[in-house]
Amino acid sequence: VVGVIGGGQLARMLTQAAVPLPCRIRVLAAPGATEPPVGDTVYGDCRDPATVTAFARGCDVVTFDHELVPPPVLDTLASLATEVHPSPGAMGQASDKVAQRSLAGFTPLEVAPYEVIDDIGGLIRATARFGFPIVAKAARGGYDGRGVTWIDSPDYLTAFAIGALHGGAVLIEPALRIDAELAVTIARRPGGDHVVYPVVRTYQSDGICRSVAAPAATTPDIARTLEEAAVAIAERLGLVGVLTVEAFLIDHRLYLNELAPRPHNSAHYTIDACTTSQFENHLRAILDLPLGDPTMTVPAAAMANIIAATHDNPDPTLVDLPPATSVHLYGKQARPGRKIGHVTVTGTDRTAVLATAQHVADQHVNQDGDWQPVSEPTGTTATLVRCSA
Amino acid sequence: VVGVIGGGQLARMLTQAAVPLPCRIRVLAAPGATEPPVGDTVYGDCRDPATVTAFARGCDVVTFDHELVPPPVLDTLASLATEVHPSPGAMGQASDKVAQRSLAGFTPLEVAPYEVIDDIGGLIRATARFGFPIVAKAARGGYDGRGVTWIDSPDYLTAFAIGALHGGAVLIEPALRIDAELAVTIARRPGGDHVVYPVVRTYQSDGICRSVAAPAATTPDIARTLEEAAVAIAERLGLVGVLTVEAFLIDHRLYLNELAPRPHNSAHYTIDACTTSQFENHLRAILDLPLGDPTMTVPAAAMANIIAATHDNPDPTLVDLPPATSVHLYGKQARPGRKIGHVTVTGTDRTAVLATAQHVADQHVNQDGDWQPVSEPTGTTATLVRCSA
Repeated sequence: VVGVIGGGQLARMLTQAAVPLPCRIRVLAAPGATEPPVGDTVYGDCRDPATVTAFARGCDVVTFDHELVPPPVLDTLASLATEVHPSPGAMGQASDKVAQRSLAGFTPLEVAPYEVIDDIGGLIRATARFGFPIVAKAARGGYDGRGVTWIDSPDYLTAFAIGALHGGAVLIEPALRIDAELAVTIARRPGGDHVVYPVVRTYQSDGICRSVAAPAATTPDIARTLEEAAVAIAERLGLVGVLTVEAFLIDHRLYLNELAPRPHNSAHYTIDACTTSQFENHLRAILDLPLGDPTMTVPAAAMANIIAATHDNPDPTLVDLPPATSVHLYGKQARPGRKIGHVTVTGTDRTAVLATAQHVADQHVNQDGDWQPVSEPTGTTATLVRCSA
Repeated sequence: VVGVIGGGQLARMLTQAAVPLPCRIRVLAAPGATEPPVGDTVYGDCRDPATVTAFARGCDVVTFDHELVPPPVLDTLASLATEVHPSPGAMGQASDKVAQRSLAGFTPLEVAPYEVIDDIGGLIRATARFGFPIVAKAARGGYDGRGVTWIDSPDYLTAFAIGALHGGAVLIEPALRIDAELAVTIARRPGGDHVVYPVVRTYQSDGICRSVAAPAATTPDIARTLEEAAVAIAERLGLVGVLTVEAFLIDHRLYLNELAPRPHNSAHYTIDACTTSQFENHLRAILDLPLGDPTMTVPAAAMANIIAATHDNPDPTLVDLPPATSVHLYGKQARPGRKIGHVTVTGTDRTAVLATAQHVADQHVNQDGDWQPVSEPTGTTATLVRCSA
C-alpha cells in the first residue's frame, strides 16, 4: 500500500497511474473534502501528527500530494518504520525557497539577486538595492500564485501580510525581464537510477500555470544545462520520486525559479504524450522499481489548465473535442481561479497543439478567454511577466 | 455512478479510464474474488437476480465486464429504471454465436458454413458434410479458448461435453485455412454517433489471444469492409458502448468470427497508442458524452498478453523494460494459462514493435517462449490455425 498525504488532483492521478502497477493507493484527504474519491480514501488532518502517524502505519510507503505538511509532522514521519519518499529532509529543503537557492550552487543554474528579510529594516534595504517593482515571496507554502506579491511601490503592509500569513521567511527579488519559463522533471530511484523528461516551456498568467508546450523550442545547450541541474539537485537531495526544476530564461542564461519535489503541473502532459507518465514513474521510483521510458511518443504536445471562472461546474466532456485532444477532470467543485482539470493535445506542430489546447481550455471554462501565451523568445521580444510561484 | 458487473481486468481498466471523467465506477465482483480492488467494489453473485437488482438500483448506468450474466438476470435488469448499456437484448444477441451469424447478413462479411446441432444425429450429419477436422463451439459462454473443441476424429463425447458444460446450442464448423485474424472495435452513443478504431491483426495460440498488431497490414478495401461491418452490426443491435468484430481473412475475403459487446483484448493497445482508449470511449458512449478521438498517436503499436506459466506471480515491473514499452498488470493471482497482464510497445516499425512486445511478455512469464506469431499473410503462406473463441 502506497499512502498519499493529500487528496488533490495529484493523488487522483497517482491513483490512476497505480492501476497497472503491483501496488495499491490509499489517500489521506482533508476532512470535509468534497471531491468524490476515486479509490481507497480516508479523511484526516495532515497537520496532526497522530493522524499522520496512524495513516502511515497502515502503509508500506508514504508520499505526498502537496508540500503543506508542517515540518514537525515531517519529523514525526521520519521517526516511523514506514518508508517516506521523498524523505522529510529532502521535502523540507526542496519546498523552501531559501534552501532551493542554495541548492542552485551545485548546478550550472544562476540565481537572481534576492534578499531574505524578517523586518522592516530588511525590506527597506532590499528596496534600496532593487528599486521598484520588486516581488515578495513567502519561502514556504505558496502555490498557484499564492504567497507571491508584486510590489510596485513602498507598500510594506502587503509584503508583511504575506509573512504573517505563512509564518516564515520572505524573499525579496527584483522584477525580472524573462524571455521564457522552462521546466524539467526528473524521476530518481533510491540507488540513483534516474530518467529525465523533456524540457518544456510553461506559460503563466497571474501566477498560475496556464499552459505547457513540450518539448520546449530551445537550444540543445539550454536543455542540457537544465537537465544537468535537475540531476545535480536530485542527487544532492538524495531525492526519491519525481522533482521538477523551474527556471527562467533571461538573455540566453538560465536562472533557478523554484523546485517541486512531487508530480508537477508542467509534466501532466506526460500522461498522454510519453511512454511512462510522471505519475507512474513517481510510483516506480518510490517503490524502487525500474523506471519507465520518459520519452515522448509524439513529436509535440501541449497541456492547458482548465481554470474555473465561476462557481458553476462546467463540463468540457459534454462538447465535441478537436482531434488528438484528451480531457482530464479532477472532480473538484468549481471556484473562480481554481484549476479543475486540464486538456492535452498531441500532434506534430508545436504551435498548433498549443493553440488548440489553450482554445479548448479557454472556450468552455477559463476566466479570461483573451489570455494568450506569449510568443516564442527571439531574443528581442522579451516580455515582462510576473514572477510566479 | 456507473456500475460494472464483473470484477476482472476490464472493470479494472474501466475504473482507470473513469478517473478523468465526470463519473464514478462501482464494481460488482464475484464473492471471494482475490484481486485487490482498485476502486469502489462490492461483492455478490452476478447470477442472482436479487443481488444484481440491488446493485443496479444504486447506479445511474450499468455495464458489463463479461458476457456471463444469465439471460434471466438480463431480463430482470431490463425491467429496472436504471439504464443498462449495452441493452440486455443487444448483449444477448451479440453474445450468442448463432445470433452473431445471422447479424452477418446485414454486413459485407461472409459466414463460413456451420451447423447448429442438438443431438447425435445432427453431429453425424455435420461431420458427413464437413469431414474432419471440425470445430465444435458452444454458442454461449466461451472465452479464451473455453467452449471450443477441435475434433480430429469421431470423438462425439468431447463435443457433447461442451454442450453439457454450457447448457446451450453447439455449432459445428469445418476447420478453416485462415490467412489472418483481424478485428475492429467501434464505440457508439445512443443517438448513433460512433467512432471506429483502426483494424488490427490478432495472433492466437491455443485459443487465447497472444498478441495484436495495430494497425493491421492489410489493404484499404479489407479494412473498409470490416469497418462497415462493425458499423452495420452496431446499428442493427442498437448497441451503446463498444463492440469488437473479429473476422478471418481467407483468400482475401472476410468471414465473421465472433462479436464481443464490451471492451476487448484486441483493443487494449488503445490505452497507450490512441488519443482516447476503448475504455474511455465505452464510458463516454454509455454516459452519452461526445466520443473521443480513436486515432492512433503513433505509427505502430503492438500488445502482447502476459500469460502465467505457473502459480507463481511473476512481476515484470521488476525488470528493465525496452524503450516505448508499457506494462499493465491486472492484480490477479497467477494460474497456468491465465492472462495476468499485458504489455504495449509503440514505435514506427510494425514488425519491430510486435517482436518487442512478444519478447517482453514471453521472457518473463509466458508458458511457451517458443511461440511466435505467424508471418504477415502473402497469399501463399496460409497457416492452418485453430479457430478460436
